Amino acid sequence: MESFINRRTIRKYKQEDIPQEKIDMLLFQASRAATMGNMQLYSVVVTRSEEMKEKLSPLHFGQPMVKGAPVVLTFCADFNRFTKWCEQRNADAGYDNLLSFMNAASDTLLYVQAFCTLAEEAGYGTCYLGTTLYNPQGIIDLLKLPKLTFPIATITVGVPDECPEQPDRLPHLAYIHEETYHDYTPNQLDIIYYFKEQLEENQKFVEINKKENLAQVFTDCRYTRKDNVAMSEGMLQTLKNQGFLNMV
Amino acid sequence: MESFINRRTIRKYKQEDIPQEKIDMLLFQASRAATMGNMQLYSVVVTRSEEMKEKLSPLHFGQPMVKGAPVVLTFCADFNRFTKWCEQRNADAGYDNLLSFMNAASDTLLYVQAFCTLAEEAGYGTCYLGTTLYNPQGIIDLLKLPKLTFPIATITVGVPDECPEQPDRLPHLAYIHEETYHDYTPNQLDIIYYFKEQLEENQKFVEINKKENLAQVFTDCRYTRKDNVAMSEGMLQTLKNQGFLNMV
Repeated sequence: MESFINRRTIRKYKQEDIPQEKIDMLLFQASRAATMGNMQLYSVVVTRSEEMKEKLSPLHFGQPMVKGAPVVLTFCADFNRFTKWCEQRNADAGYDNLLSFMNAASDTLLYVQAFCTLAEEAGYGTCYLGTTLYNPQGIIDLLKLPKLTFPIATITVGVPDECPEQPDRLPHLAYIHEETYHDYTPNQLDIIYYFKEQLEENQKFVEINKKENLAQVFTDCRYTRKDNVAMSEGMLQTLKNQGFLNMV
Repeated sequence: MESFINRRTIRKYKQEDIPQEKIDMLLFQASRAATMGNMQLYSVVVTRSEEMKEKLSPLHFGQPMVKGAPVVLTFCADFNRFTKWCEQRNADAGYDNLLSFMNAASDTLLYVQAFCTLAEEAGYGTCYLGTTLYNPQGIIDLLKLPKLTFPIATITVGVPDECPEQPDRLPHLAYIHEETYHDYTPNQLDIIYYFKEQLEENQKFVEINKKENLAQVFTDCRYTRKDNVAMSEGMLQTLKNQGFLNMV
């Protein structure tokens, strides 16, 4: 598992294709991840064509990995396939609700991580695009995702053409709690975030953005309340459109 | 990655402890998984005491792994730590909304899968308890989870004391779509689910439950509409209680 422990996100890829059989094999091996009731509540849409990458790119805010990677994978929560099978067997599929969405999203994310670990072990670089959740409706329209599916994560895959520094991580005691959750004292928070705050690159972000500290870079520039609220409303509406909130 | 490709869920464990330093190390190594904006939006509550296992057990419907495993890990989406840090730095943390919940849940599930892969590679067996999402409020109360946290997944870990058959998986073409999602024809569904339907153990389930077919075992016995709707309402209420739906 050296490849995992030494992993870094790879955003630049060589101009080198990955055969679809190789992707298929990794996707199949990844299906060994735990899945609820062995239902495998996910689907993967593979983007290879320049035309689709061109259209997908703005939905991911123009992040260059989408057009730069040979393969872009959109992992979707999928209760459509299972529900259609149930209906075909005269079984009453009650999976058009929030719990079922979360079950399918969980299956999908475990599967995504399993795929990434296997792909990295095979020598490929991956980048996780969190932007998938920012504008799910756009992605649904482009990839023609039916009801009871929802795009959860997008992974770009390619042969690495960079080896960036490994980013910092919090000290592990920051997120491990014994028996019950022990909430954080101000002093503990200072210690937990000390290393991150004093990193030169983070201090530069503070300076460039004319903020008082790193936390304000996150709240005022990167992940703002205004954007989060707007995108939450979009997500809620999209969950409804996709049939996942028919709870009564 | 042979350990991953050969993996099976392990529900029976030897009466053998796992040192906390070993768990800490695996949890730290797992933090190399991708995380949104390097925020690490998760926490892990470690259950080792008999008393807590006794109380946790009914919240997981008495599944014997909870009391049978030396270590039970409850992985929680956590925007509490980050928000408290922001507040301490006079930064306006707007993470009390649905998108932020999904971001934290995503971080958590990637982290869970990374942990499981590493733990299995180290020779341990794991079991993923999906029941965590069935009664989150009970788990929140027991583990004293504060606002802006939410229990997402529970993993039991131990030294394997069984080696069950590997379960079936769908043929990979069942869930891989080229360029756009291609919805399933009745004929395709028959093919995709053929292997699962004809498995002897599944045919037994149909017989025991006096159903017409396997799909009805899922919809009428295992994951019913009535339960899903009730648990969805509970989840929605719990998301509100935990402060994740303050969208306006």
